[in-house]
Amino acid sequence: MADEAADLGEALRRQADTVRRLKQEKANPEEVAEQVAKLLELKAQLGTDEGKHKFVLKTPKGTRDYNPKQMAIREKVFDIIISTFKRHGAEVIDTPVFELKDFDIAGQFDPMIPDAECLKIVHEILSGLQIGDFLIKVNDRRILDGMFAVCGVPDSKFRTICSTVDKLDKATWEDVKSEMVGEKGLSPEAADRIGEYVQLHGGLGLIEQLLQDPKLSQNKLAREGLGDMKLLFEYLTLFGIADKISFDLSLARGLDYYTGVIYEAILLQPQNAHKEEPVSVGSVAGGGRYDGLVGMFDPKGRKVPCVGVSIGIERIFSIMEQKVEASEEKIRTTETQVLVAAAQKKLLEERLKLISELWDSGIKAEMLYKKNPKLLNQLQYCEDTGIPLVAIVGEQELKDGVVKLRVVATREEVDVRRENLIEEIKRRTCQP
Amino acid sequence: MADEAADLGEALRRQADTVRRLKQEKANPEEVAEQVAKLLELKAQLGTDEGKHKFVLKTPKGTRDYNPKQMAIREKVFDIIISTFKRHGAEVIDTPVFELKDFDIAGQFDPMIPDAECLKIVHEILSGLQIGDFLIKVNDRRILDGMFAVCGVPDSKFRTICSTVDKLDKATWEDVKSEMVGEKGLSPEAADRIGEYVQLHGGLGLIEQLLQDPKLSQNKLAREGLGDMKLLFEYLTLFGIADKISFDLSLARGLDYYTGVIYEAILLQPQNAHKEEPVSVGSVAGGGRYDGLVGMFDPKGRKVPCVGVSIGIERIFSIMEQKVEASEEKIRTTETQVLVAAAQKKLLEERLKLISELWDSGIKAEMLYKKNPKLLNQLQYCEDTGIPLVAIVGEQELKDGVVKLRVVATREEVDVRRENLIEEIKRRTCQP
Repeated sequence: MADEAADLGEALRRQADTVRRLKQEKANPEEVAEQVAKLLELKAQLGTDEGKHKFVLKTPKGTRDYNPKQMAIREKVFDIIISTFKRHGAEVIDTPVFELKDFDIAGQFDPMIPDAECLKIVHEILSGLQIGDFLIKVNDRRILDGMFAVCGVPDSKFRTICSTVDKLDKATWEDVKSEMVGEKGLSPEAADRIGEYVQLHGGLGLIEQLLQDPKLSQNKLAREGLGDMKLLFEYLTLFGIADKISFDLSLARGLDYYTGVIYEAILLQPQNAHKEEPVSVGSVAGGGRYDGLVGMFDPKGRKVPCVGVSIGIERIFSIMEQKVEASEEKIRTTETQVLVAAAQKKLLEERLKLISELWDSGIKAEMLYKKNPKLLNQLQYCEDTGIPLVAIVGEQELKDGVVKLRVVATREEVDVRRENLIEEIKRRTCQP
Repeated sequence: MADEAADLGEALRRQADTVRRLKQEKANPEEVAEQVAKLLELKAQLGTDEGKHKFVLKTPKGTRDYNPKQMAIREKVFDIIISTFKRHGAEVIDTPVFELKDFDIAGQFDPMIPDAECLKIVHEILSGLQIGDFLIKVNDRRILDGMFAVCGVPDSKFRTICSTVDKLDKATWEDVKSEMVGEKGLSPEAADRIGEYVQLHGGLGLIEQLLQDPKLSQNKLAREGLGDMKLLFEYLTLFGIADKISFDLSLARGLDYYTGVIYEAILLQPQNAHKEEPVSVGSVAGGGRYDGLVGMFDPKGRKVPCVGVSIGIERIFSIMEQKVEASEEKIRTTETQVLVAAAQKKLLEERLKLISELWDSGIKAEMLYKKNPKLLNQLQYCEDTGIPLVAIVGEQELKDGVVKLRVVATREEVDVRRENLIEEIKRRTCQP
């Protein structure tokens, strides 16, 4: 390792000589830029760090430690989720559990309006996360109960048969049927009738079809559930999200708890030409309508309809982390927009004055903590940390009343009048 | 209580009749508005709630439960603190302790540059919180040690005498002196010499004066500390914050830990004409220079100079809460910008279409979950929750291609063309 560093050091010195010579010779700017780039690469390999620094802000958010990269991903996810909920009028309460509850304390809300909003929220969150294609399955407990009744399932077996149906996303129909008949004592005929229903999924068309179904339409509960499902799909169409929602008669989650609409959002694997349908890679959100108790507000502890959404945060984090790893996307761990740099020595005061102006205008800015840092080291620091802009103070620039603004990615440099600098940085970093 | 409600109900009915009659008579709009306002007040007293709802978002931020009002204050405080640190290039790490550390891993940073930035950060945070007037006291361990030496304190007594000096913000000089002499065995002469120094506080002038001080200027450590203090004040002047910083020789916090500059931010009580100086109501931030170990990066575990800031979050929260209580300021617990309301019945679909457009443009919007809510109830909901704007959909407005935008505070109403509505709401709520 020491030898390697010495070799690198020698290469670095030689490359620095080349750059110096080219500059003295006033060589072609493109050639100079190319040689400077090589020099920066060598410096990066050697890990020189003149006045580099690192602020680390520790916040009391949890008990587990995450590294800055993980935290950056977690922050992005939280930001999208929380801003979506706030866009829908949510209050934030500080508890160890992440969940959303939709209360109507005194009045009753009209059917399906809050349910549709919850699905819109899930749709906005999953779209915002850009986590891949997704589908939200919906069903209704009343439709499931009605279906079991018309298929000839005894009342006492509703719950246990329901939990078998819920295995359909992982098991085949044959396995599910054999559990129903073998373990749970259902007649093979009843099981087959269930089998015909639970393979159905679709949208408004399927709802209309089932409202005409000779058996199901005779059941009061099922009719109620299907009527509300139709209303829900009408609202989802108005929201422009019906294409991502699938009415799916095999969805049977948490029926001990939910009393009406239930839903579950799943991520889909990228579509494959050899497969007919995209494959689910797991549930990332779910919820439904349940009877809440409003004991806190109502001394009689009356039941009040509630709609809940919960987001599978940890699952989303690990999918996002995997995605970042796979894409080799560089995740920045700071949000710094601009490095304030000096082109020559003895410009510390000018750097301090400029950076103070930038901070006071809300711009995220850093500078190296050296009195006279080398320009190359300042540029290298931006390459390492992903800072997109450099505001370079130089003697000539000071005389001209300008600051040289360098775009790190393209190496483009432009003189900006000092009084326009803040506006220009905001414009280039899309900060309002 | 029941009688009271009945009386209120009767008053409400009578007031509603009055409003109805005035409207039929096409009375003077100002008179109608006045009577409607009375009606709204009565409704508020009765607490009618037609389709009112409440989203509650629970986040896994901590273990203690706060109510929505407390959370709104905590969120505001956190937002200001974290955005300030991020403006200065901080990474965020998730741990149970809130503190900031300023690492220079391989190189040494030049004197006082990061120290000045830490003071700028504290200044930005306390200004941003608008928590009242404040002062940041600074001192340096080397100045204190030099001062003890020239006053004739034996080396072995530096630490214990220092901890007595630290009591000066709560005790009188007489009490402090008697502890030094009586309990700690210092000579009264040495104590008196300390007494002369520790009552000094000021800025660059005081530093210059002490650099000329016949005793202190003979001490190498004190000279070093004063030289750096001068540099620090020059940087603070460039940052435009020197007027809030006081070089105070009685500041002696945490000297077992800090090795150079130390500082402490205190809030000041409102100035009183009868008092000569504002009185401190306690420390809200502090920090200083210390020797960190960089074991993680340096196998030899070498010492590396670090500058730390810690913010007294819980203290700031309780001061902010008290301030809100005292001012009777209404703290909103949601951020909703606009309520989408209907002027007549049968406009649910139009409300759903409009609110969906608003959400998709990033506007925070709510609607009541009733199919046909009364306009009065919709307006009352805004009064109760502090929503500033109402976008009213009506039959005539639909025909004209406009939406009526109502400013809740002024009751001003203006027709806005549908295609300009989003821009107009953003303009009025200062959302970029």
